[in-house]
Amino acid sequence: MNDHSEAEWLREGERFDDLQRNNLKIIQKTEGFRFGMDAVLLSGFANVKPKERVMDLCSGNGIIPLLLSAKTPGEHFFGLELLAENVEMARRSVAYNGLTERITIEEGDVRLAAKQFGPASFDVITCNPPYMKSGHGLQAEGDLRLAARHEIFLTLPQLIEQAAKLLRAKGRAYFVHRPFRLTELIVCMHEFGLEAKRMRLVYPYANKEPNMVLVEGIRGGKPYLHVDPPLVVYEKVDKYSKEILDTYGY
Amino acid sequence: MNDHSEAEWLREGERFDDLQRNNLKIIQKTEGFRFGMDAVLLSGFANVKPKERVMDLCSGNGIIPLLLSAKTPGEHFFGLELLAENVEMARRSVAYNGLTERITIEEGDVRLAAKQFGPASFDVITCNPPYMKSGHGLQAEGDLRLAARHEIFLTLPQLIEQAAKLLRAKGRAYFVHRPFRLTELIVCMHEFGLEAKRMRLVYPYANKEPNMVLVEGIRGGKPYLHVDPPLVVYEKVDKYSKEILDTYGY
Repeated sequence: MNDHSEAEWLREGERFDDLQRNNLKIIQKTEGFRFGMDAVLLSGFANVKPKERVMDLCSGNGIIPLLLSAKTPGEHFFGLELLAENVEMARRSVAYNGLTERITIEEGDVRLAAKQFGPASFDVITCNPPYMKSGHGLQAEGDLRLAARHEIFLTLPQLIEQAAKLLRAKGRAYFVHRPFRLTELIVCMHEFGLEAKRMRLVYPYANKEPNMVLVEGIRGGKPYLHVDPPLVVYEKVDKYSKEILDTYGY
Repeated sequence: MNDHSEAEWLREGERFDDLQRNNLKIIQKTEGFRFGMDAVLLSGFANVKPKERVMDLCSGNGIIPLLLSAKTPGEHFFGLELLAENVEMARRSVAYNGLTERITIEEGDVRLAAKQFGPASFDVITCNPPYMKSGHGLQAEGDLRLAARHEIFLTLPQLIEQAAKLLRAKGRAYFVHRPFRLTELIVCMHEFGLEAKRMRLVYPYANKEPNMVLVEGIRGGKPYLHVDPPLVVYEKVDKYSKEILDTYGY
């Protein structure tokens, strides 16, 4: 996709990781937040059709727009990210992969996203939000390292409200979250007119409690939830299930 | 438990079924609604502690109070049932098993249950409600045969409202339902102050979509959902999983 050597694209403390799809690579920090299985599973769970415009909220290093551009026929993928440092790094990944025509990374605050982009401006929203509630003032707003995992800059209701506003009628939102937040997620989606229509639980092993949940919501949908078969990550210790290997593109 | 021959306890068109617990037997109609795996799984999912008073709503032939009396140390189990015919049959089952001191079957309309029994009068509520929405006026209110499966006499919000009213603060409600109603169930519970705190999906096979969901709600609970490991019914065709065999008492 490019004529330069990889090293020219990297800053200090960064590395490339292979996405196992269309020869895509992503720039990530060697230390600090790197994308996890949740982002990969969300990109496999999201349903994006031809000509659709997709917005990924809390986009971080841009992993989800990158994966969706490879896995789906969507027309254009946007990523909205608060931290300038992440925005710049994600833009370099997009440029390295030659995807600037199809992926746009925007800097901005999700809490103001409907103002920034206009209401009903997307067909699909994706989001891998911070999972943990902000802890009783212990975390300073300024501690950027915690922002990917803790609701420091964005609460779940704030996120859902903006997702619902950004979607056209019958548009679809895809979230990955921890199961312990599922009640809040589904109730909050309902309150903002984003009805949960499909759900999949991700179990690390076939006989263990799930550690992730994937939810599809439809703006203005009627209540009827389709629950998918369980997604089991490991067949046994250190051996991924066939579905996980397929999702990762092995 | 009794000195009579079984036949003396039965009316025409009825039979005894063995509950595989404490030598309990239940009287059921040969034709028509008989208890299913959902009632058995709900009685295994419900957590009833010593000295607690339990109310089973939509109690039908009384299967859930009977099973809970055998499986849990609860003090007294009530069943509320609308149809006089079911009430009479359930009372005969209770009497046959010698449980009249511990189980009381009451006739009444769940929609008026809080008036009949008083608010905050139970520690635990159980319910295996009708799963299907009433279909656009096609079913007459009078068709009793449909009442166990269709919301003819009782909608989900009406049920949840009464369950919440009947429970003391921090009391627990246990429901079994079809997964496609899960969003409505969880949202409705939240709206009536009954927060979903534990959930388990029942999958017929390990790689299939679930066909039942068990939910525990706590009156006045804070949002935090615990999702249990999957409950898989069949290991392979015609072979129950070990957990199902245990639940049934084999």
